[in-house]
Amino acid sequence: MTKIAVDAMGGDHAPAAEVAGAVAAAAEYGTGVILVGQEDRVRAELSRHETAGLPIEVAHASQVVAMDESPLTAVRRKKDSSIRVSANLMSDDRVSAVVSAGNTGAVMATTKLVMGGLPVVDRPALTTVLPTQKGKPAILLDVGANVDCKPMHLEQFAIMGDIYSHKIFGVRRPRVGLLSIGEEDSKGNELTKEAFKALKRAPINFVGNVEGRDIFAGDTDVIVCDGFTGNVALKLSEGVFETFTTMLGEELQRTLAAKVGYMLAQNAFHQLKRRLDYSEYGGAPLLGLAGLTVVCHGRSNANAFKNAVRVAREFCERDVNGVIEQEFEKMGWTTPGVAG
Amino acid sequence: MTKIAVDAMGGDHAPAAEVAGAVAAAAEYGTGVILVGQEDRVRAELSRHETAGLPIEVAHASQVVAMDESPLTAVRRKKDSSIRVSANLMSDDRVSAVVSAGNTGAVMATTKLVMGGLPVVDRPALTTVLPTQKGKPAILLDVGANVDCKPMHLEQFAIMGDIYSHKIFGVRRPRVGLLSIGEEDSKGNELTKEAFKALKRAPINFVGNVEGRDIFAGDTDVIVCDGFTGNVALKLSEGVFETFTTMLGEELQRTLAAKVGYMLAQNAFHQLKRRLDYSEYGGAPLLGLAGLTVVCHGRSNANAFKNAVRVAREFCERDVNGVIEQEFEKMGWTTPGVAG
Repeated sequence: MTKIAVDAMGGDHAPAAEVAGAVAAAAEYGTGVILVGQEDRVRAELSRHETAGLPIEVAHASQVVAMDESPLTAVRRKKDSSIRVSANLMSDDRVSAVVSAGNTGAVMATTKLVMGGLPVVDRPALTTVLPTQKGKPAILLDVGANVDCKPMHLEQFAIMGDIYSHKIFGVRRPRVGLLSIGEEDSKGNELTKEAFKALKRAPINFVGNVEGRDIFAGDTDVIVCDGFTGNVALKLSEGVFETFTTMLGEELQRTLAAKVGYMLAQNAFHQLKRRLDYSEYGGAPLLGLAGLTVVCHGRSNANAFKNAVRVAREFCERDVNGVIEQEFEKMGWTTPGVAG
Repeated sequence: MTKIAVDAMGGDHAPAAEVAGAVAAAAEYGTGVILVGQEDRVRAELSRHETAGLPIEVAHASQVVAMDESPLTAVRRKKDSSIRVSANLMSDDRVSAVVSAGNTGAVMATTKLVMGGLPVVDRPALTTVLPTQKGKPAILLDVGANVDCKPMHLEQFAIMGDIYSHKIFGVRRPRVGLLSIGEEDSKGNELTKEAFKALKRAPINFVGNVEGRDIFAGDTDVIVCDGFTGNVALKLSEGVFETFTTMLGEELQRTLAAKVGYMLAQNAFHQLKRRLDYSEYGGAPLLGLAGLTVVCHGRSNANAFKNAVRVAREFCERDVNGVIEQEFEKMGWTTPGVAG
């Protein structure tokens, strides 16, 4: 049975949201879950739910990594943190994947240290799923695991993203784009110009350069970039979105007519919120890891954790890592370090 | 008298928006304007306005650079394009600045070729002005002139942005941030880590790393980055904004209650639009050029052109270039090429 470790101490609403999400996943999908964290707090939270007969266990971890803690310090010093114990459960084969909403840097560093990458993969890549105007999600990677990349890393990201889109979202022939600053082949910086050539030769449906504005249009299923650009892009999107909603909220409170109008149109705003809701997509997998880590947003609610557990299980049962290994071997990337 | 050349053939609404904006600038501010383009079309458009006694001239240019044309081809082959003739007017000292909404790459390449950079500046930088939650604009540079940068280029961008913020927006001690992927000093890629050290030593109010989400918060006046990241960020912001408004518009049409609510709240939406309106800020100056080029959005309306002419004039009369030269000389950057 596929079991998933859920770091119960990671997110802003820990452990309540983590526990509620894990219970929902166990109840709805029958997925086995091990909640990892301070046992008394986790059990207290569990007691608020109906859990009789559900495949839920608890593993104790005495320490918690704070959101503002240095990832390297956390890895070195906190040997009994909830994320470290979760990673150990994965390396001991007691679980197939780890879900965590903790300090992203520490989650990535810890699980990479404990598990390592797949033997064929140079650089695991953090992969996020974004809503688009056409309803289908778009996959963006890398969004922060590798701040400095070589062209071949982007090629590896493209192939992993292609497999993820196909296996998890059922896209038959994912359209893969390269994030750049113009659609013409010749546009870009040194990195993307070289990567463009590599992607053209790669066994994927490469659709060429895409620009920042195209990410949300829904015409591309997978978009690759280096982790610096991807992280800036991801946080910027959140910032624009927040700015827009904050400003609109202010304006809608300014006059009585606007307030009444807002009340009447409230359902439209709820529908919009649902269309843009990240929590349906199940978090950001670190692709290329031996095993699987799914990083959730710090603000994740129970629904986000439930979906992260669902995606983690699908990832394992559909053998995404096995397919990545096969495809990389076909490319002749049989040893790590080929991309430098 | 400060005169400004307005490329009348550049934007999506050329020459109507350009001519209307130039007429408004001449009438409101008394600024001398030379409209550059196909003379019969420009004069036909001018005849729709009341221009008696206004300081408006027309300079003929037989060719037009298309939006999708290669900048290099345009520079080489179209010697009588409206942007080329505008740049020539600047190099002949007949105008102090050029305003154009044409093909951004061609506008930058042409004016750089004809004018060159300031003797002390290695890399002119395209500078955009963004609205923020706090009302004050934020300056982002470079947004596309230099896709591959060295740390010292970012330092030069920071100093130019600082001067621009001070001289044009009257910010007394601009807060300058470095676009990166975390607020801690140690976060970033190779480029930003080195640039961070240089910016700490620079004679500016450096506030450290800022993240994508901070750009619109309004706590930073100037944000520097390489031109690849900046261009991705700029286009992504437009994309998120468009996605949000498109989706909200769809939802607001779905039910009768939402439609009525939207009508009642209409003024709130108009106010929001005004707060986010780029056309008040007067386009994107290419800082560091000998002379000045202001690049306007292809979709610019008459108000945007009017404000671009106003900003171009302020830029010249407040001697922004002279201050840049002084500051760069103080830094010991007396010859171009110091930053490689």
